[in-house]
Amino acid sequence: MTTVGILGGGQLARMLALSGAPLGLRFLVMDTAADACAGQFVPMVVGDYRDEAALAEFASRVDVATFDFENVPAESAQWLSERVPVFPNPRALGVAQDRLAEKTLFRELGIPVPDFADIATRAALDEGISRIGVPCILKTRRLGYDGKGQFRIKSAADVDAAWQALGAQAQTVGLILEAFVPFERELSVVAVRSRDGEFRAWPLTENWHVDGVLSASLAPAQASSELADTAFGYARKLAEALDYVGVFALELFCRDGQLLANELAPRVHNSGHWTIEGAETSQFENHLRAVLGLPLGDTRMLGHACMLNWVGELPDAAPVLREPGGHWHDYGKSPRAGRKVGHATLRADSAEGITRALRRVGAGLKRESQVDPVVARIAGAL
Amino acid sequence: MTTVGILGGGQLARMLALSGAPLGLRFLVMDTAADACAGQFVPMVVGDYRDEAALAEFASRVDVATFDFENVPAESAQWLSERVPVFPNPRALGVAQDRLAEKTLFRELGIPVPDFADIATRAALDEGISRIGVPCILKTRRLGYDGKGQFRIKSAADVDAAWQALGAQAQTVGLILEAFVPFERELSVVAVRSRDGEFRAWPLTENWHVDGVLSASLAPAQASSELADTAFGYARKLAEALDYVGVFALELFCRDGQLLANELAPRVHNSGHWTIEGAETSQFENHLRAVLGLPLGDTRMLGHACMLNWVGELPDAAPVLREPGGHWHDYGKSPRAGRKVGHATLRADSAEGITRALRRVGAGLKRESQVDPVVARIAGAL
Ligand SMILES: Nc1ncnc2c1ncn2[C@@H]1O[C@H](COP(=O)(O)OP(=O)(O)OP(=O)(O)O)[C@@H](O)[C@H]1O
Ligand SMILES: Nc1ncnc2c1ncn2[C@@H]1O[C@H](COP(=O)(O)OP(=O)(O)OP(=O)(O)O)[C@@H](O)[C@H]1O
Repeated sequence: MTTVGILGGGQLARMLALSGAPLGLRFLVMDTAADACAGQFVPMVVGDYRDEAALAEFASRVDVATFDFENVPAESAQWLSERVPVFPNPRALGVAQDRLAEKTLFRELGIPVPDFADIATRAALDEGISRIGVPCILKTRRLGYDGKGQFRIKSAADVDAAWQALGAQAQTVGLILEAFVPFERELSVVAVRSRDGEFRAWPLTENWHVDGVLSASLAPAQASSELADTAFGYARKLAEALDYVGVFALELFCRDGQLLANELAPRVHNSGHWTIEGAETSQFENHLRAVLGLPLGDTRMLGHACMLNWVGELPDAAPVLREPGGHWHDYGKSPRAGRKVGHATLRADSAEGITRALRRVGAGLKRESQVDPVVARIAGAL
Repeated sequence: MTTVGILGGGQLARMLALSGAPLGLRFLVMDTAADACAGQFVPMVVGDYRDEAALAEFASRVDVATFDFENVPAESAQWLSERVPVFPNPRALGVAQDRLAEKTLFRELGIPVPDFADIATRAALDEGISRIGVPCILKTRRLGYDGKGQFRIKSAADVDAAWQALGAQAQTVGLILEAFVPFERELSVVAVRSRDGEFRAWPLTENWHVDGVLSASLAPAQASSELADTAFGYARKLAEALDYVGVFALELFCRDGQLLANELAPRVHNSGHWTIEGAETSQFENHLRAVLGLPLGDTRMLGHACMLNWVGELPDAAPVLREPGGHWHDYGKSPRAGRKVGHATLRADSAEGITRALRRVGAGLKRESQVDPVVARIAGAL
């Protein structure tokens, strides 16, 4: 009997556990919140990731550890990795936690990135802006998620407000300035690398964000196979450079048909949720297979899929449940503004089938604005 | 938050819970064994189904109740149904628990059955045999499963031994004598009926038994659409007669191209396990949707599927995990002779793809005898 420990007990841990149960696995999650939603199905250690006693209890009860949450302190991951196998390794986690380190690595590996600068002082910000130009975005290096810890600088007039908002964090989590990319679209590669170095990627996914939070994902993305191969090549290079084990996502901007890397998510990723129903093997199962040294599962798609994220609160489930290819995912969380509380996946044999399902669900939920960009993308490609 | 109570905490309850978690459901199982495998993921009430205090506790903690195990005493189901909604209803459960009642109902509904006789005494057995002829099978009316509680009577010389083995049960669970059907094959309809009477069936499935226990299932069965429609018609008639709500299986023998009903399983069924990966909606999810009054999900297949049962102990998982369409299900049980401890499902885009996968898995596990009948059936139909 193998117990997999997961640091972080949110929906990613919950879906990992549900997909790992058929493999005969047991789970233990650690989270700072006693009501973390994975805890509805698996046992939990409640505690701060810096609390050595809690971490020691967690370590003593698991055979291998992984993450639902990438912002576990690097020292905690390191401490744990001296006691149990930890995948991905703490170095990969450390790089992915830090926008500056990850963009520097992307650049070293020849993966194009938006222009960026390390910002330690107000003077460095002015200097960065004069080099990179406006519009640009000031971001915290660490601990950002769902667009939090970001300030968009549209013109020189915004610089004071940006420093006002984030300047204090220059000495704590650090700051990075990035060129604003007027992208045509956002894509992600969700991929997995095994302990013995095998690499597999799911088909390229296109993503739409609203207020910095993922709103919809379409797979396969409407993209040429050259573009997809370039994206897969970047993901593979990155995984090899980091000796990465498990599932990760590489988020990319596409501008003038060129790819620019935005960030590396060192875990199963929201843009891969469609793989539960839309792929032969889900990202969740393959992450566990990788972490445990089992053969990787097939990443081929079963038709076409579109995922819609439910943020803040769940809409009525019925329009999705009435869809022939509709699949509902309620994370068992209480509603809260900005919180990811669930998602739906629509599966169909063709992109046209996805369009029809999206139209019905959009109308049924009065969420046309969420589905329209996806419908338009498919229409544009036909 | 809705809590679904399940009487019985085996692999069926476990798979119900795993498939219901994404619907935002909570579960509570009741089982006589504290180590019932569903208890690894959901809370449990441990107690005998006749223990009113345990049943009352169970009832007080659930919003609706259903079954993983059909042999819950009829009075317990009735008692429970006076406190919480119970699906399927206790009458349907009662009929399905009793081979004599179910065969009588089949006959009333015009569903062909093997010749049968109620056996209360040794004299009735002799009389039954002179009418039905040999070979025939003496079975307990209640509490049989996986071929247990059966005695095959090949010739008149076996009658004493048959009575010796089962006669004492004539006054407890009752006995039934059935004509032995030299069937060409065994088929099952796995179907679902909603609270408002909607009926859906998954494609017809062919099943192979070894020592009375299911060994393999192939879907879709290699059968004409007329045969399938006849089978679906029987299932629908039965469901309507019983005002059945939820998933059930109708097991059928096929002899000279004619169908004879064997039994009704009033629950999700082993011959429907392939629906987890092989159908748009699994039997487990659709059972929950039916029980909760939610819209039923699509029962269409995604390609072709073959399920292999693991009885007694699990074989090596690697040959299945290495298959592109290979899916592993370990129920988290300890090994024991005759016990269903897991299954694998192989999915492919064509029947030929299933053949190739079965050959590789059969060879990899040295289980050619388990896969060969399925391979031969597919070859015969090509
Ligand atoms: N340099 C940029 N140019 C244009 N848009 C950007 C840029 N950086 C971020 N964005 C927009 O903001 C979104 C969130 O940014 P980013 O991925 O950096 O933040 P995050 O907080 O880590 O979000 P998550 O991890 O949830 O994707 C991006 O998906 C993109 O839509
Ligand atoms: N009348 C019959 N003629 C020929 N074979 C039979 C007959 N009845 C049962 N069998 C064989 O025995 C197997 C098990 O019988 P049956 O379904 O009645 O028992 P069970 O104990 O209820 O099994 P389960 O519920 O697990 O299918 C059947 O699938 C079939 O292979």
